[in-house]
Amino acid sequence: MAIRFEILGRSSENNARIGRVQTPHGVFDTPAFMPVATAAAMKGLTPEQVKSTGSQILLNNTLHCMLRPGSERIAAFGSSHTFMRWHGPILTDSGGFQAFSMADLRTLDDDGVTFRSFVDGALVRMTPEISMRAQNQIGADIIMAFDDCPPAAADVPQQRVEQAVQRSVAWLQRCKVAHTDTQRQSLFGIVQGGTDCALRKQSVEQTCAIELPGYAIGGVAVGESANAIADVVQFTTPLLPVDRPRYLMGVGYPRDIVMAVAAGVDMFDCVLPTRNGRNALAFTRAGPLRLRNARWALDQNPIESDCDCSTCANGLSRGYLRHLFSAGEMLGPTLVSLHNLRLYQRLMLDIRRAIVCNAWSSLRSDWPCLSAADPEPNGEESE
Amino acid sequence: MAIRFEILGRSSENNARIGRVQTPHGVFDTPAFMPVATAAAMKGLTPEQVKSTGSQILLNNTLHCMLRPGSERIAAFGSSHTFMRWHGPILTDSGGFQAFSMADLRTLDDDGVTFRSFVDGALVRMTPEISMRAQNQIGADIIMAFDDCPPAAADVPQQRVEQAVQRSVAWLQRCKVAHTDTQRQSLFGIVQGGTDCALRKQSVEQTCAIELPGYAIGGVAVGESANAIADVVQFTTPLLPVDRPRYLMGVGYPRDIVMAVAAGVDMFDCVLPTRNGRNALAFTRAGPLRLRNARWALDQNPIESDCDCSTCANGLSRGYLRHLFSAGEMLGPTLVSLHNLRLYQRLMLDIRRAIVCNAWSSLRSDWPCLSAADPEPNGEESE
Repeated sequence: MAIRFEILGRSSENNARIGRVQTPHGVFDTPAFMPVATAAAMKGLTPEQVKSTGSQILLNNTLHCMLRPGSERIAAFGSSHTFMRWHGPILTDSGGFQAFSMADLRTLDDDGVTFRSFVDGALVRMTPEISMRAQNQIGADIIMAFDDCPPAAADVPQQRVEQAVQRSVAWLQRCKVAHTDTQRQSLFGIVQGGTDCALRKQSVEQTCAIELPGYAIGGVAVGESANAIADVVQFTTPLLPVDRPRYLMGVGYPRDIVMAVAAGVDMFDCVLPTRNGRNALAFTRAGPLRLRNARWALDQNPIESDCDCSTCANGLSRGYLRHLFSAGEMLGPTLVSLHNLRLYQRLMLDIRRAIVCNAWSSLRSDWPCLSAADPEPNGEESE
Repeated sequence: MAIRFEILGRSSENNARIGRVQTPHGVFDTPAFMPVATAAAMKGLTPEQVKSTGSQILLNNTLHCMLRPGSERIAAFGSSHTFMRWHGPILTDSGGFQAFSMADLRTLDDDGVTFRSFVDGALVRMTPEISMRAQNQIGADIIMAFDDCPPAAADVPQQRVEQAVQRSVAWLQRCKVAHTDTQRQSLFGIVQGGTDCALRKQSVEQTCAIELPGYAIGGVAVGESANAIADVVQFTTPLLPVDRPRYLMGVGYPRDIVMAVAAGVDMFDCVLPTRNGRNALAFTRAGPLRLRNARWALDQNPIESDCDCSTCANGLSRGYLRHLFSAGEMLGPTLVSLHNLRLYQRLMLDIRRAIVCNAWSSLRSDWPCLSAADPEPNGEESE
């Protein structure tokens, strides 16, 4: 079966909605946060541990899976679900963002891109058709169009952003042709357009003219400010079809997520809770804690006293976590990643409650971090 | 309360016995295998995961805990139990073995040793009194005497081994004087003597003349052959008091453990299941699997099809584990450490069954690895 999206409630204060997406591998609630299992693995977390955080759907990065172990290898095991033993829903990105942002890009033209593999230096070709074939092999429930995603750097000319919009639509049409098993996997289109509202509007119109089960906002959190992200999201989201899931790719901090939910976004992914967790930064409702700091050395409190994650509930203290990071113990990244993922899923639970009960002001008072400055730039990235 | 050791049964075929040790933090069954949580942490495993392997008692390395985070720091949290949130029994080694084997040793005399810290290069002094104070601070249920442990290299003169025997007894007497809270922590003496039976006998007599709740065989698995280990263990173990737990330090492979149990040993620790697990070597009843090998790339079977560890029971395959190690994913070390620890605890369960039922021949047929050659040298070491 293809995915089925039901909207179960709407906020009367803003454009937020709660809902549920049925997939061939079960249901996930929206607004949803998807942890990033880059190369068909959550870094340092077993599938059981990921499930214990309340996560319902994971993201795999197609480019990483293509390079290692290879998408055909995953297909030999059935799909990413059976390969990594994650029995819930999975979404794959297209590989486009990674090819543009982290790979050694060699050529880019209307057919596709060529880049050097970061695994073995080999030249790798990526086109809409190659991305679709790889995503078909990985077998996620939701797959993403291969799009042209330029960075948001100040020196990127307007012409390049326009080209990306045109090319992304042309590539989406090729993706739709190349992707045939629409019952097993649901293809989402991606809107581009940088920070230019006219281009975003044009991209929405051209992208959504192609009938698809869901649509995403891409090209966000690629280097621009939090305000610029908000402007784009608040402008673009209401233009997307109301009856399809809306996915804001690669965002972000709790504050960004709440802003985007209020604009009508249903799905999120971000490496922040896990990547920062591995680097000893613990998210809390009050804001981040840097656990390498000497001030925690004798602190016997858990990261958050009222947190129900396994790290906090088992009483593992800030002082102990600081010791683990000081000693280079791999248990530290595991324990803080677990906490951070649970923190994000607790945020999503509270967001859904705020939508149902119109309890936005108590959400903001329960989560002081929503009013604080971001500690670091955002990032739509693989782990 | 001090520990209480009960022998619940004896083999009629050899000197093996099953029993149970009560400690201030609960009971462990013997023969027991203790995983090594070097710096107050199991590498890559949460306390819950360690417990899921059936492990009942852990070992902390005193030298590592002294250097980082500091034994007084652990004391500030109560003890290692509260610091690492392991609520079961804990044993600490004395720090002597690490000071002799892995540290940059500067002086060794009848008072103690001085070495350079591998954390910050500072000169660190270790004496029986300092080891006792550190172990008192760490707060394990069983603590070990500070002993003089020379390597088993061929060029170590007989005189040096004799000196180690004498010095270890003298140091044990100082340890006993320095350790006062015998209700909270039980001090075990350590027999030395290298591979020389006369020296081992002398060491047993002098060590066991000092009344203690348990005794250990040290200076084994420090570089000598498996046959030499067996000779020393089979000679020394029956000389130890029958009514006290007997602990063979740092051993070993499944084959060595079964040999030593048959000689009457009750307690074991070794880094092999976890250190090898981190390096992609999975133990099985049939022998080790090297999971980096390309032959496993498409293998959809778990490490062992009848294993009840969480890795195998959840169906994580050899092919997936190989991918994790190829991609440098930290999840690989976690999953194989979990399997290997459970494999060791399954061995201990089968050993206890063999003792009760005199089922030694079926133990050997169920565990073909007991008859195979060892893949690597043994090691009494920290993680």
